[in-house]
Amino acid sequence: MTDFKQAMIDTADAVSEVLDDLLERMEGPENRLIEAMRYSSLGGGKRVRPFLVVASADLFGVARSRSLRAAAAIEMIHCYSLIHDDLPAMDDDDLRRGLPTTHIQFDEATAILAGDALLTKAFEVLASPETHSDGAVRADLCLAYAKAAGDRGMVGGQMLDLAAKDEDLDVPAVTRLQRMKTGELISVSCEAGCILGRASSEARTLLNGYAHDIGLAFQIADDLLDVEGSAEEVGKATGKDNAAGKATFVSLLGADRAREQANLLSAQAAAHLEVFGDKAALLQELARFIVIRKS
Amino acid sequence: MTDFKQAMIDTADAVSEVLDDLLERMEGPENRLIEAMRYSSLGGGKRVRPFLVVASADLFGVARSRSLRAAAAIEMIHCYSLIHDDLPAMDDDDLRRGLPTTHIQFDEATAILAGDALLTKAFEVLASPETHSDGAVRADLCLAYAKAAGDRGMVGGQMLDLAAKDEDLDVPAVTRLQRMKTGELISVSCEAGCILGRASSEARTLLNGYAHDIGLAFQIADDLLDVEGSAEEVGKATGKDNAAGKATFVSLLGADRAREQANLLSAQAAAHLEVFGDKAALLQELARFIVIRKS
Repeated sequence: MTDFKQAMIDTADAVSEVLDDLLERMEGPENRLIEAMRYSSLGGGKRVRPFLVVASADLFGVARSRSLRAAAAIEMIHCYSLIHDDLPAMDDDDLRRGLPTTHIQFDEATAILAGDALLTKAFEVLASPETHSDGAVRADLCLAYAKAAGDRGMVGGQMLDLAAKDEDLDVPAVTRLQRMKTGELISVSCEAGCILGRASSEARTLLNGYAHDIGLAFQIADDLLDVEGSAEEVGKATGKDNAAGKATFVSLLGADRAREQANLLSAQAAAHLEVFGDKAALLQELARFIVIRKS
Repeated sequence: MTDFKQAMIDTADAVSEVLDDLLERMEGPENRLIEAMRYSSLGGGKRVRPFLVVASADLFGVARSRSLRAAAAIEMIHCYSLIHDDLPAMDDDDLRRGLPTTHIQFDEATAILAGDALLTKAFEVLASPETHSDGAVRADLCLAYAKAAGDRGMVGGQMLDLAAKDEDLDVPAVTRLQRMKTGELISVSCEAGCILGRASSEARTLLNGYAHDIGLAFQIADDLLDVEGSAEEVGKATGKDNAAGKATFVSLLGADRAREQANLLSAQAAAHLEVFGDKAALLQELARFIVIRKS
């Protein structure tokens, strides 16, 4: 196994351990809520966003005990968004990561509440003194995550996505939609490493450029998987965008040009980090992995 | 009009103005999200929680420009919880504050996302430098709100409430449920004033006792209104708990003893604040108002 693959697995395991600690079971009927939170966040996944937090923080020598908490918080927000996106009133998906979605496994009300609770917990984790001794750093983390996840970020992107089902989008419009829906959370993952590490503004700009490029590359790769992957491989229903007549990078550019574009962005992302030398090798490997993954 | 009623109206107006500023409209299809956020949070309401934030902060001489932001944030969390509670998969309510609920006025998907975005926005507001110059204060606010609103607080209480439909609860169990579902958000409203004002631990303990008592009194009064009020007066469907066979303070204690208990808690709440003298008059009036209100 390559060092990169081992690092991905190690980080995913470490984040799962932190999530397991943070989502402590309760006595009483409300434990059903915790079980739903655990089900949706401990059931696997590539943990790309946590990896970005930890690897970015590593660039600035941040203690893992801190970066793993910020990593767990971003995964909570990501998982909450998946629970709510999968609901019948939204994308109405039954399968996620090869398992029943949370509202299928539990029920709709529990799924809505589990999403709400995961989002809230993310801010509890970020704002806790264990995440950083300096309150200003904790507040900056909360602010950055809230902006990325909110109406001008992820949730706004999801709203655009719902509206998009009724209208034809062009490449700039799809780029903007995906920038909000998935790109902002990827960017704030790298930003979290910078905030924790009190990175210079030059370093922040470079990591921001990197995150911007891999965010878009990640989405194009997702669109390609939706067309070319099987549900079994990808772990969720595929071909849905096409069936829904939704504009994607693949429907707009064709598969070949979309793949070319993803590879270009991947290379450009890696180039942003050259100044960090070997220290950025894992982040550069991630940029490559993102466009060749099979799920 | 009494000074208290005028103060309630003034605070409600001031909070609405801050919410109006914070929920700025956007260009493009995602503005539907903002309209749903505005619809659910600018459509009236007594603004009890914001009043608690502002009146508590006033005790410690906090600038209104700060306390009104913390007040807007608590109202955003309250309104998000109402949107999600009203959803078909939850309490399935069509009427709120005399108007169609958000999922009726817009649609279910938009209502889910508007709730998510309001919750997220609350943390954005709390974590922003405009709320306090000291990052540690901002982080403390985020932490307190997240704990109050999350799986050990409001959302956990809502989960208990869903489970309660299937089982008989006694008075301690209903008390615990309501403590989590509505009491925690009322408590953190007073706590926010203490955090902003860097109150002494003695003052915090007194306000905490006050908040604990009015939280329970508020809920008992709500249960009485559900039995005795008309939908027209109360602005939402009444008699629902009874029809659902749900255990409430009224079903367990009877209306007379429930009213007695509410009055007792109201007086006890006011007594906690005697040491503050005249400065606490509005908070003491609120304790009385809570048990005599008609909606």
